[in-house]
Amino acid sequence: MRFLTFNHAGKESWGTITNEGVIDLGNLVGSSLLEVLQNDKLDAMKKLASGLEVDYKAEEVEFLPPISNPGKIACVGVNYANRNAEYKDGSEAPKYPSLFIRTPDSFTGHNLPLIRPPESHKLDYEGEIVIIIGKEGRRIAEEDAYEHIAGITIMNEGTLRDWVRHAKFNVTQGKNFIHSGSMGPWMVTADEFTPEQFENMRVTTKVNSEIRQDDTTASMMFPFKYIISYFSKFFHLKPGDVIATGTPNGAGARFEPPRYLAPGDIVEINVEGVGTLVNGVKDEEL
Amino acid sequence: MRFLTFNHAGKESWGTITNEGVIDLGNLVGSSLLEVLQNDKLDAMKKLASGLEVDYKAEEVEFLPPISNPGKIACVGVNYANRNAEYKDGSEAPKYPSLFIRTPDSFTGHNLPLIRPPESHKLDYEGEIVIIIGKEGRRIAEEDAYEHIAGITIMNEGTLRDWVRHAKFNVTQGKNFIHSGSMGPWMVTADEFTPEQFENMRVTTKVNSEIRQDDTTASMMFPFKYIISYFSKFFHLKPGDVIATGTPNGAGARFEPPRYLAPGDIVEINVEGVGTLVNGVKDEEL
Repeated sequence: MRFLTFNHAGKESWGTITNEGVIDLGNLVGSSLLEVLQNDKLDAMKKLASGLEVDYKAEEVEFLPPISNPGKIACVGVNYANRNAEYKDGSEAPKYPSLFIRTPDSFTGHNLPLIRPPESHKLDYEGEIVIIIGKEGRRIAEEDAYEHIAGITIMNEGTLRDWVRHAKFNVTQGKNFIHSGSMGPWMVTADEFTPEQFENMRVTTKVNSEIRQDDTTASMMFPFKYIISYFSKFFHLKPGDVIATGTPNGAGARFEPPRYLAPGDIVEINVEGVGTLVNGVKDEEL
Repeated sequence: MRFLTFNHAGKESWGTITNEGVIDLGNLVGSSLLEVLQNDKLDAMKKLASGLEVDYKAEEVEFLPPISNPGKIACVGVNYANRNAEYKDGSEAPKYPSLFIRTPDSFTGHNLPLIRPPESHKLDYEGEIVIIIGKEGRRIAEEDAYEHIAGITIMNEGTLRDWVRHAKFNVTQGKNFIHSGSMGPWMVTADEFTPEQFENMRVTTKVNSEIRQDDTTASMMFPFKYIISYFSKFFHLKPGDVIATGTPNGAGARFEPPRYLAPGDIVEINVEGVGTLVNGVKDEEL
């Protein structure tokens, strides 16, 4: 089942979405999708939703990131094996994943524009598959990792390329411009995937209908279960925590010359079994 | 005035603290110190507190980080000029600050133990002066920066040294072990400092009474007003946001051989005009 967070008539709510439209569970039971996960009520909400009629057409709501205020948004850096090669710095495959944190307001929702700030015109896309945690845990064994997944969503891990290199270490600046990235359109619950699907899930990024990124989780140096296990050694993973699992090769910065995003571009990121996250690009209004 | 967040009789609250003891404002008006800042009620709470008797002795409360769940905790990496030299990598002074994000549960409170995890025994101290934001802003000019400060607190930006080097970039892992750092004991409101004090504020770290770090903000490559202005170019700074401004030279990792923290050690970080943050060290109980 697909869960989403949205604005309707100027009010934030959450619910489920089918091909027929949106069921507004927030209006019915209050709370938020984050609180549903925190209170372990996802199964109850699935049952509730399956007996209800749709409230709105999809085009009547404004999509927001599925979890509007997660406790943490942790992003894996280089993870697809051929992307490490793409850096051409002669380095061997990394022993551990690279990891940085983004703030919630660095993301906008599906169908809303990515914002190109006046500070940099090197706005780039990164299509990513995202794990949303459903069950808290510390030092989770790899064999138990999938039990901690509430569902999967999609991220455009939009990046200001020159600002990730402001410092010797740490990419934080270029990863945190307001609304430079996007998440959504919804979270597909984990029960819709087999372990084999988690381990061979395709992500494809198109810019203006041209394919730029196309790979599967089978190429990951650090697959989902490793990431969950490793992150839980230092983090206490909690329901609603968001983990972006890295982007395949083919980001705009890797072209010669680089192909950065500009106003009017349309970025579509498709994840097999989840859907397609679509965003335009516009310059920030000051 | 000094504001704090604390546990009393198993319940989280907040208030003010004087030499006589703690005034429990949470019990009186509800809310949290974060919400007080978000609602711009700090001045009102100062007035309220000044007419009240103390509720508890200081030793009757358990100190928590002053803001228990900030929207973001952003930490400047190398900032004191002589610390860049300490790295001995021949690099010039950086053009921009390095920056990483920590999660709230990587910190414990004053007088509570720092936790050394079984994954690493390279737990190190970093004494830091911390800005707590009081007024939201984006693209804040340096000359307006001080208006955005609600107050100052102290951080032990505790670090697992080997885990900050797990990845080529990004120190996230070694900066986010649960309760590896500390914040507190309280926030001293900005009206107690002049601009000259912000620009020449001393921070001193002792381990088992031996001075290890001792410098002032006059040595910073990126002073408070630069940091606030620069961070607000990508972040939307919001009330309650926490900015750790970097640590002077003299962390344990810089000694030969390194002097890491071990169970039984006592770390005291004093910041002029604020107070002293004290933490023991213990091994994690599994």
